[in-house]
Amino acid sequence: MRYFLELAYNGKNYFGYQIQPNQISVQEVIEDRLSKILRKQISIVAAGRTDTGVHAKRMFVHFDYEEELTAEIIKKLNSFLPKDIAVYHLFLMDEEAHARFDATSRSYNYYISPFKDPFSYESAWIFNRELNVDKMNEAAKLLIKQGDFGSFAKLHTDVKTNICDVREAFWRKNENNQLVFQITADRFLRNMVRAIVGTLVEVGLGKISIQEFNDIIEQKNRSSAGASAPAHGLYLVDVQYSKELFKNELK
Amino acid sequence: MRYFLELAYNGKNYFGYQIQPNQISVQEVIEDRLSKILRKQISIVAAGRTDTGVHAKRMFVHFDYEEELTAEIIKKLNSFLPKDIAVYHLFLMDEEAHARFDATSRSYNYYISPFKDPFSYESAWIFNRELNVDKMNEAAKLLIKQGDFGSFAKLHTDVKTNICDVREAFWRKNENNQLVFQITADRFLRNMVRAIVGTLVEVGLGKISIQEFNDIIEQKNRSSAGASAPAHGLYLVDVQYSKELFKNELK
Repeated sequence: MRYFLELAYNGKNYFGYQIQPNQISVQEVIEDRLSKILRKQISIVAAGRTDTGVHAKRMFVHFDYEEELTAEIIKKLNSFLPKDIAVYHLFLMDEEAHARFDATSRSYNYYISPFKDPFSYESAWIFNRELNVDKMNEAAKLLIKQGDFGSFAKLHTDVKTNICDVREAFWRKNENNQLVFQITADRFLRNMVRAIVGTLVEVGLGKISIQEFNDIIEQKNRSSAGASAPAHGLYLVDVQYSKELFKNELK
Repeated sequence: MRYFLELAYNGKNYFGYQIQPNQISVQEVIEDRLSKILRKQISIVAAGRTDTGVHAKRMFVHFDYEEELTAEIIKKLNSFLPKDIAVYHLFLMDEEAHARFDATSRSYNYYISPFKDPFSYESAWIFNRELNVDKMNEAAKLLIKQGDFGSFAKLHTDVKTNICDVREAFWRKNENNQLVFQITADRFLRNMVRAIVGTLVEVGLGKISIQEFNDIIEQKNRSSAGASAPAHGLYLVDVQYSKELFKNELK
C-alpha cells in the first residue's frame, strides 16, 4: 500500500534533503526512524529536494508498506524524530500516486529581515540596506511566464531542460515587518529561488534596472544574474496536488 | 549626560541579563562593546533582569557619557554586537532619568506551541497535550490584583516584599497558532511568570481547578504552585515609562 506523509523540517542542521554519503540528510533521518518503527527497510520519495540549510514548512513524501497503518504512526514518528523534523498527516493513497510526479507545482517563500533581529538570524536573511520593494515587485512580474530560467540555474547540473512555468512571484510584508518573496512554479531549477532573490535584491538596491533584469532573464546565462541569497532564508512552503488524490487521511 | 538605549536580545546563549563572574551575560557584552566604541568604561543599568535563557524583545538600559552622541552609535553598536543582541533607539534623557526606577510596569509574553514545530523549539515551549484555554483564562483573571505573589516567587531571594500589582493577564492565539500568555505588572518576582505559566498549564490540563488555583495564590507559598515553564518560551516584550521622559530621540 502507498502512503503519503506531510511533514516539515528546519534545514539548519542538515546537508539538504537528499541522502548522501558521510553527511546527515533529512531523508536519511526519516527513513531511519520510519524503518525502525515499521521494522522493515523503508525508502521515501519526496516531492522535491531542498539544498543544504534550506527549510520546508510543508513537504510531502511517499513510501510503501504492506500493512494498514493508522495515525498512531504520526505520534510515534514525532517522538522518534529529532526536534527539527515534524510529521503532521498520513494519507492512504492509490497505488500509483507519486509524491514527485503527481505534484503540479511547488511554492517557496524567502524571508528578508530589513533590520537586525536577534530572533531571526537563523530563519531570515538579515539585510538592513534600504530596498525599493515596488521596483522588486515590478521586476518579479517579469518572471511570471513559461520560459527558460537558465539564468537562475546552477551550472553543470544534469537536468534536460531549463523550462519552468512560473505562476506567481511577488513580495509582501508580513506581520513581523519582514519582506517575504513568494514564488510558485511547476518546477524549480537547482538554486533558482536563491539566485532570483539575490538578483531582485540588486534591483531593490538600484544596481540593476527593470530592463536589465529582463535582459538577464533573456540571456539564459547564470553568470549574468546576481549572487545567490543565503540558504537559511528559504522555505518550501507548499506542494500542490490534485485534491482528488487525498481521499483517505488516516486519523 | 544620561542616555537610554532600547534594545532586544535572544537569551539562548546567555546566562541571563545580569553580569556575573565566569558566565557570559547580556550586560557584560553590551558594556564591553559600548566601552570599546566610546573608549571609556561604561556601565549600564537595565529596567530589569532576565534569567538564563529568557529573551527580551524590548528592553531599556541607561548609561552616562559626558559627550553628545548621535544615532551613529546605534549603527556601530549593531555591527560590534553579536547577532543575538540588537539596539534600536537612543534617547538623550534628563540627568535623573532611571531605566529601572522610572519604569512604571513591565510586560512579558510566554509562548506555547501546541504542536511539534521544527521552527520554534528554541523560541516556544512545545507542549502538545490538549489545554483548556478558557479555563486558563478564567484562572488568569484571578491574578489581576495588587497582592502578595509569594506563591510564584523563587525561594530564598533577598527581596523585601512579594507585593505586585498585576494589571493584565490573559491567553490568546497568535497567527502561528501558538498560545501566548501576556502579563503586565508594576514589578515581577524572580521566576514569577514561569511559575504562573507552569501552574496555569496544570489548570488547562484539568489537574488543578479554578478554586484550587485561587487557593494557591492565597497560600503565598511557592511549594503549592506548579513547576516552572521552561525559560526559552519567555520574553520581556515591553517596559512602560511616562512618555514625557522620552523627549529627545537621537536620529
